[in-house]
Order: sequence, then C-alpha cells, then structure tokens
Amino acid sequence: MDEVQRVIDDISAKAKTASRTLLALSTEKKNNALARMAILLLDNKGYIQKENEKDIEAGKATGLSPAMLDRLMLSDDVISAMIAGIHEVIDLPDPVGKIDGMQRRPNGLLVGRMAAPLGVIAMIYESRPNVTVDAAVLCVKAGNSIILRGGSEAFYSNRALANIMQKALLESDIAKEAIQVVPVTDREAVNVLLRQEENIDLIIPRGGEGLIRFVCENSSIPVLKHYKGVCHIYVDKTVDIDNGLAIIVNAKTQRPGVCNALEGVLIHEDIADTFLAALTPLMVKEGVRLLGCPKSTALSEDIAAAEESDWGKEFLDLAMCVKVVSGYEQAKQYIEKYGSQHTECILTQDYSLAHRFVQEIDASAVMVNASTRFNDGGELGLGAEIGISTTKLHAYGPMGLEELTTRKFVVFGEGQVRN
Amino acid sequence: MDEVQRVIDDISAKAKTASRTLLALSTEKKNNALARMAILLLDNKGYIQKENEKDIEAGKATGLSPAMLDRLMLSDDVISAMIAGIHEVIDLPDPVGKIDGMQRRPNGLLVGRMAAPLGVIAMIYESRPNVTVDAAVLCVKAGNSIILRGGSEAFYSNRALANIMQKALLESDIAKEAIQVVPVTDREAVNVLLRQEENIDLIIPRGGEGLIRFVCENSSIPVLKHYKGVCHIYVDKTVDIDNGLAIIVNAKTQRPGVCNALEGVLIHEDIADTFLAALTPLMVKEGVRLLGCPKSTALSEDIAAAEESDWGKEFLDLAMCVKVVSGYEQAKQYIEKYGSQHTECILTQDYSLAHRFVQEIDASAVMVNASTRFNDGGELGLGAEIGISTTKLHAYGPMGLEELTTRKFVVFGEGQVRN
Repeated sequence: MDEVQRVIDDISAKAKTASRTLLALSTEKKNNALARMAILLLDNKGYIQKENEKDIEAGKATGLSPAMLDRLMLSDDVISAMIAGIHEVIDLPDPVGKIDGMQRRPNGLLVGRMAAPLGVIAMIYESRPNVTVDAAVLCVKAGNSIILRGGSEAFYSNRALANIMQKALLESDIAKEAIQVVPVTDREAVNVLLRQEENIDLIIPRGGEGLIRFVCENSSIPVLKHYKGVCHIYVDKTVDIDNGLAIIVNAKTQRPGVCNALEGVLIHEDIADTFLAALTPLMVKEGVRLLGCPKSTALSEDIAAAEESDWGKEFLDLAMCVKVVSGYEQAKQYIEKYGSQHTECILTQDYSLAHRFVQEIDASAVMVNASTRFNDGGELGLGAEIGISTTKLHAYGPMGLEELTTRKFVVFGEGQVRN
Repeated sequence: MDEVQRVIDDISAKAKTASRTLLALSTEKKNNALARMAILLLDNKGYIQKENEKDIEAGKATGLSPAMLDRLMLSDDVISAMIAGIHEVIDLPDPVGKIDGMQRRPNGLLVGRMAAPLGVIAMIYESRPNVTVDAAVLCVKAGNSIILRGGSEAFYSNRALANIMQKALLESDIAKEAIQVVPVTDREAVNVLLRQEENIDLIIPRGGEGLIRFVCENSSIPVLKHYKGVCHIYVDKTVDIDNGLAIIVNAKTQRPGVCNALEGVLIHEDIADTFLAALTPLMVKEGVRLLGCPKSTALSEDIAAAEESDWGKEFLDLAMCVKVVSGYEQAKQYIEKYGSQHTECILTQDYSLAHRFVQEIDASAVMVNASTRFNDGGELGLGAEIGISTTKLHAYGPMGLEELTTRKFVVFGEGQVRN
C-alpha cells in the first residue's frame, strides 16, 4: 500500500508539472500532437491489438461475458473510429484563451474572463479502452493533463494506447506526462487518487452507479458525474399526434441501452384514449413492454400493471412506464419525484406551456417536441463530449471542451489603486 | 443525534420543496420580497438588537475577545449597511432565464443554454451575523433556497434576522422555507448537513482554514471555497516606478487583514537596487515589516532575513516578503510554488510580457499594473459577492449572482428524431 501511495503521488505530481507547460501551448502545437497520435495509432495497430489480445485472453479465462469481451475488443473498426474521433477534436475550436465580457470599469480597469485549462483531470472508468483515447485527446486539446484509471480487465490495452499517445507527445515536444495511465491495478490506487487534491483538479468517473457512488463518497476532489438517465416525455393535450408518436418511438427504441433513452411517458387524460390507441400498436411492434397506471391499463390491454418499483426505473431496455395525468401540474410533480435531472421533454403545440416547461423543469436538458436522444454533446453542438453531468455545479448536461476549462479574471490596469 | 438528523432532514427537505417554487419566480416578485426585507429589518431593529444583546452577553460571559464581540455586534451602522446591501442586490440584473449561444442545428433544432437556479445552497460560516442577510438576499435573488448555519456565538442574532426575512417572504407570497437557519447549535448538525446530497446542491463555507478543511473533507456535496490568499506582485525591469510604488503600497497597506492583500513582492534583479531604494522607506513609513532573500537584505538594511516559513505565508498583517529574481521565469516558478491561486499581478510596460503573464499564471485573478485589492466582486463588476473561489470548478474568483446559477440546455424542436 505504501508502494501504491508512492506511485500515485509520483504520477499526480508529474501530471501537475506537465499541466503547467500545457496551459499556454498554441492551438497549432496541440493539434499537431493530436494529428501525430492519429498517425501513430494507425502505424502501431499491430502492437495495440497484440496487447489487447492479452486482455481478451485474460477476460476469457476469468469468464467475462461475450458482451464484455466485445466492449473490450480493439477491432480494426474500433481503432478507425478512435482515429476519426481525433480528427473531429482537431477540427473543434480551441477553448483556451477566449475572453468573455471584457468591460471597462469606472476607474478605467479593463476586466474580462479568460478561459484557462482546469489543470489535471483524473478519469476513472470501466471496460471500453477507446475511452482512453477519446478522453485523453479532449483533455490535451483543452490544455489539461490527464490521469487514466481504466478497468483492470483493459489494463494492457489502455497502457498500449497511452504509450502510443505519449510517443506522439514527445515527438511534438510536449511533456509526455500530460497523458498517464495508472501503472498498477490495485484497487487501493483509486482511493489514493481521490485524495490527491494538491495535484488533481477534477475527477470524472464513468461507469456503473456503484463505481460513481464510490468515487463521490470517497473523493476530496470535485467530481463531475451522472448516476443515471430516467428520461420522460409529457404528452400534452395539444400534441401534434404524428410528430409525437414518431418522437416517442425514436426516444424509446433507437438505442434503448443509453442514458438519454426514454423511460416513461406521461399522457394528458383528455387525449389518453386516442393517443394510446395509436401508440400501443407501434410500441408492441417494436417489442416494447408497457407498464402502466390503472387508468392506462383500463384503456389498453397491451399495457400491464406497473409495480411501484417500475416508476422512476432506468430500464435501459425495451420497456417503458405509461401514466395518465390530469395535466401539466401532475406531470411536473411526477418528474420532480421520479426524474433524474437528465432529459425531460414536452410534446405540445401550446406556446405558453412550452415556455413554462423549459423554465420550470429542472433537468440538464429540457426539450420541446424533440427526441430525448438529442441530449448528447455532438447533437447539441459541443462537438465531442467527455461525459454528461447531472449535478449542477460547473457543468449541467454534456461536457465538451469548454467544460474542461475554467474562467479566470484578467485585469489590465494603468496604475489603479483602491480607495 | 437522531434528533439532529431529524431536524436537518426536515429543513433540507423543506428547502428543496421551496426551491421548486422559487426557480420560476418573476424578477419583480423576488425584488418586492427583498424590498420588504429591507423595510422589516429597519422596522424591527429593536427586536433584532435585543436578540443580538443575548449573544453579546453570552459572548462576554464565555470570554470572547473585544474584536470578536465587535464582529458580533449588530449596531445601527451594521444594520444600515445590511439594508443598503439589499438595495444593491435589488438593482442587480436577475441572472435567471438568460439564454446564451442559441443556435440552429443542421436538423433545425434550436439549442441554447438557459441560466437556472442551483436549487438549495447551504452556507456554513463563523461570527459576523450580517453574512446571514447578505448571503440570503443573493441566494433568493438567484432563485435558490438557502440553509444558514452560523457560529453558535451568533445564534440568537442569526435566528432573529432569519425570522424577519421569513416574514418578508410570507408577506410577498413566497415560501418562507426559502431562508432557514439551522435551529440547533450541536456541532453534529454540520456533519449531517454535509451528507444531504439528495436535497442540497452546494455548500459554501466561510471562515478560518480549519472550518473550510473540515467541510471539504466531510462533504459529499460540491463545495465552493478558498483557503487563503497569498498574493504576489512581480516587478518587471520595465516597471513604471511611480505607478509601481503606489500599487504596492496600496495592495499591502490599504486593508492588510483581507485575502486580496499583498503578501510578497518579487523584483527583477536589474532594477532591484533602484526600486528597493524607493520602496523600503515608503513601507517603513507605513509600518510594514519586510522579510527578504539574501540579495534583498544586502541591498537594504530595512529588510530582515526571511525564515523559510515566511515564503508563501498569509501574513494578514503589516508584513511582507521581498525576493530578488533573475526575471519572469523565476518569478513564475516562485508563484507556482508559493501562490494560492488567488490574485497575482505583474508591473510592467512590456506588452508581450504582460500578455504572457495573464495567459501563463494560474490564479483566480491575474492583473497587470493594478492593485491586488481589486479582486473583489464589486470591483470586478459582479455587484455583490457571496465569496471567492480558488478551486477551478464552477467558479474561479469572486462569486456573484451568475455563479449562483447553473446553465441547462433548452431544445426547441418541431418533431425531430435522431437517426
């Protein structure tokens, strides 16, 4: 354990030192390093896949499920996607150095807020080794060092990818400690990481709810995270029915296993009969299991009675709750009780109600007449994302490059003193 | 202890419920409530001062220092200042509802980011009961509920002020639980508060370093804070000497006991002789004790040799470190080692160096040719401030109304689905 402490102390101090050289790098220099990473990842595909094979073999030996093994696999397609992702990040504007709201104060001081790198970010994640590259590339573009702690089942893969990225940094005359993988698999390493508040500025956990709760409860460093996505659509009585049906089918079925997929529909009682008559056959056709309140089960035999534990459940599967409500107020109360502050949507043609909904509902994304699946960095215009936050501090919703920076005050004076 | 848990559970749940009614209140309604507070504080000055007297008497009995008793006192002047502060906050723009960066995505979705209240804020502080009013007023203006936990030595004062503010809320048809004082003085109450992550969105501690460290180490809720202000000025060889001297005298002596006061001066070796010859008599005249490196003590007999522990010390007093450096690079290294990321300043007429400094130095405020005393919400144009953050997440530097909000994504669609 003392050895783990020593190792983590060492990499976090090196990450901090590297971050000081990164914070003022030119955009060109950072982009050149990223381009070099893309080239070296392709050139070293054989080495990467050989290391990945070690993880796959070990995974088979320890009985990982086929789905887990699939996530672990660095196939040609996965590597191509990582490389394409790097080029997307190169094309994004550099967030660092942008000054907002520059104003002249009455005493002549020029005051503005300049975007600056956060410093050192530690990413704690499970499975997919492509996160290693995706996260590192975003952090470096925003001028930050990153410490990567992936799952032990992907240790060789993550280390190989980091080796290649470090080589690209070195060849681009950037401190290679800007990207480091925790070199030990001991579980204790996570605890030690979470206490490095002198050197680490932000922790981003990505994975199951258990991992995220563990990180939050044990970290003395700020954490950005989301636990789960329990997303709802409220169908107002003024809904455009065809649009509404298409949105619900898309939100539930286009990719049911992700956090912005739909988990519950709330329907205004005035149109429940008509709307459910149109919706249920579509959902049944898609294989979606419907679990409803007594009013909805009375309206359709395709809806089974929901258990109490179904309300607010993140199914991540072809299943969904249905509830008939008396109107917007009841829908709002339901969302306050069962929502996870991820994505909430209203289907309505009522102008005032649409504006009330976006103002009153507390979620990282509030939507009118659009699929919940759009709560995603790429879809909302941020470019690539490093995760989604459902806590309201620093970032709420998808986190892109801008969310990997802070804003410091810059003050240009000409000898001003305070009275 | 079970009773403390019950009490804190109760007030934090009520604060959460109140926050849901606050988030969409009109600016007029919030301002009317604040104006009512100002009137009632004046009308009830007698009651407030009678309650304050209980704290003063208890403080005398337990042997509080005269300085502590002075801070505790709600004199006519202190109450007038609180009321003036309320009117300043009324005049500030309402941050809630502002939408930034609205753009039309290629698929026609309109996407923007809307400022929304954080929810529930808990403030943990020592001494000065005027913080009770200052903090509550800012939180309510930004649409948040606040839970106030002041020092036990100010218990009656804080409770009296909260009672008056609650009365103003009630008369303005706003949930009175938007402002609550923790009704028990048990120390355990703080521990319980710090674990209310279901209902509290942000903790702001204000007080000594011990209090702040305790809060950070025990909170599972995000914390915004600063430990201390170790602020430096680097005097470049191209300094405008008269301006520079005036800035240093102001930064060190105008109010030495506050966090943005100057604690160390770094001087370019090429001008150290001339500059110190002009600076030391001014500082001696102001009664400032100078503690320096060997090069500086050799240049002036008014500078005593610094101990190792003086470097990076927050004196909060008429004392200051002086170090002769070989140039900007050495000054930067010194600031990286001893600074507290609060306020750092350069005195220079060199255009390129000024821009390098603001880009490369990591502090909540980086300044050129201005007194460090300007790192303050009012001076930097935020209006009133609720504190200063030296962590980089969410806010870096003074926190005003805008920092008491988050930004959620708003998405206006016309039936868009994701492919």
